[in-house]
Amino acid sequence: MRKPLPSWTDSATSEGIVQFVRRVTNPSSPLFVPPDERIAVFDSDGTLWCEQPASALAFFVMHRLRDQSPEHLCLLDPALVDAAERGDIEFFQRLDLDQLSDILLQTNAGLTPEQFVTQAHRFLARSLHPRFGVPFRELTYRPMLELLAFLQAKDFRPFIVTGGGVEFVRAASEQLYGVPTERVAGATVDYSFERLDGKILVIRTRTLLGEPGEGEAKVRAIQHRIGRRPILAAGNSVGDEEMLEYTRSGQNASLCLLVEHDDAVREYAYDSHIESPARDSWLTVSMRHDFRRLFAKPTSVPAPGPRMLNVS
Amino acid sequence: MRKPLPSWTDSATSEGIVQFVRRVTNPSSPLFVPPDERIAVFDSDGTLWCEQPASALAFFVMHRLRDQSPEHLCLLDPALVDAAERGDIEFFQRLDLDQLSDILLQTNAGLTPEQFVTQAHRFLARSLHPRFGVPFRELTYRPMLELLAFLQAKDFRPFIVTGGGVEFVRAASEQLYGVPTERVAGATVDYSFERLDGKILVIRTRTLLGEPGEGEAKVRAIQHRIGRRPILAAGNSVGDEEMLEYTRSGQNASLCLLVEHDDAVREYAYDSHIESPARDSWLTVSMRHDFRRLFAKPTSVPAPGPRMLNVS
Repeated sequence: MRKPLPSWTDSATSEGIVQFVRRVTNPSSPLFVPPDERIAVFDSDGTLWCEQPASALAFFVMHRLRDQSPEHLCLLDPALVDAAERGDIEFFQRLDLDQLSDILLQTNAGLTPEQFVTQAHRFLARSLHPRFGVPFRELTYRPMLELLAFLQAKDFRPFIVTGGGVEFVRAASEQLYGVPTERVAGATVDYSFERLDGKILVIRTRTLLGEPGEGEAKVRAIQHRIGRRPILAAGNSVGDEEMLEYTRSGQNASLCLLVEHDDAVREYAYDSHIESPARDSWLTVSMRHDFRRLFAKPTSVPAPGPRMLNVS
Repeated sequence: MRKPLPSWTDSATSEGIVQFVRRVTNPSSPLFVPPDERIAVFDSDGTLWCEQPASALAFFVMHRLRDQSPEHLCLLDPALVDAAERGDIEFFQRLDLDQLSDILLQTNAGLTPEQFVTQAHRFLARSLHPRFGVPFRELTYRPMLELLAFLQAKDFRPFIVTGGGVEFVRAASEQLYGVPTERVAGATVDYSFERLDGKILVIRTRTLLGEPGEGEAKVRAIQHRIGRRPILAAGNSVGDEEMLEYTRSGQNASLCLLVEHDDAVREYAYDSHIESPARDSWLTVSMRHDFRRLFAKPTSVPAPGPRMLNVS
């Protein structure tokens, strides 16, 4: 039989994942979980793709600000406009999800969902990562893509749970991860209903339905969007802690994965800041030791990035 | 080859459906639609199962009111409590979706999602329909279940779009239609995040996230929940009109189905009240002429029900 996770090293980690999946999918196992209940949830930034030196969302926000017409720009905070013009990614890195979501709302109001997706696809294909010099869409983690495919083959339904707005992740999720738009959970833009030339369309407004955010907000987003408790969860930062604990608190057997950024040579090394005792029951995925290959498309790795802290 | 829709008669209607599906799934057809975009949306009440003499939701609301403890009952409108005790379904039939949703919120606040699902399953399995004398869960339309299965086999993703709260439909959708919980679109109850004995759970609150409703609300729910425009839509009442028109307004080939309740002998006969000229471009499904068999489980049909108007 072909190995299910070829880009993972032969470690206790990959073995633990494969064993868990075998146990919950084998009908004669005491831990068997019926297919209806095989929900898996994944954080996006830092778990499925690179989030350093700032999240792709932060780069996209900067990119969209640069696209605005002069009459739109004068309605925005001049410090923001200035930072975008200078390409000051450190400025955007310091903004939290609420702030990034709000700028995205302001700069994309009036677009149809299709127009927004076109903008996001253009960004993902053309904007280059400052260190790796490749488009952002090439910076997904190959071992995690293999895990998603392995789970789907075993009748799991993987979802992405994002702390930011769902629309940017949705625009990327099919192309990047093979996860369809309806399997992205998080705060959604509110849409207005319009008629134009006898046709009906929906248009992005400036308000969100639900609140963006991590921690508890991710657990509530799971219930709103999916309607049942997951049996597998993967995250990499303190904002994923509640989602992993929620997964562990169910009746079914469960598996929680914590992706550890400990590979400054091939990517970045930074702390998850998770101090919860629950961590002991999770499986830690060391990017340095457990990932045989890293990115979906190999990059020629330049000099190691600086060790970064407080930026999960 | 086995016929894909055996409970449908050999009419222009079933032929039209099968032809549409062949055209959009055949890669060499000019109307081919890639699998990612094969979204199908279905109204629930009156389209997938019986909604007369009142919706199953109205019966469930009455059932839950009867279950309340005396201290809960004194917080509710006495007229409501009285109608539930008398089993006055006409009273509940007159309530609109907003009112039914609100009573459901009040009577189920404090439950976990699992407890609510248990209540709903008990109702669906045990409460008997006043005319047909069988549990409500047996009153799904067999031809429509075949259509759902046919679409899934052709890589469509069918969703249910409901004007009421999603939770009641979700509790039923896997059992009744084979549609998983995350494929039910509509207004969702807001949940609180709680910790109990070191475990995390979510609890129903008394508020909704998003607004319940039909018409435009269904189109907006499709964007929130699915994130893309459907290519097939089925409904039976004036509240489904915008959803069907939205489906017709896309770039892809599309099919809109209007289920017509014209069979007073086997079910009920009542008007959809749709007067839109767009109706001419939809395919009308006559329950009398196009459905060879009607319910998922055959019922011994009692005397015809009275012709009912203004109750779609």
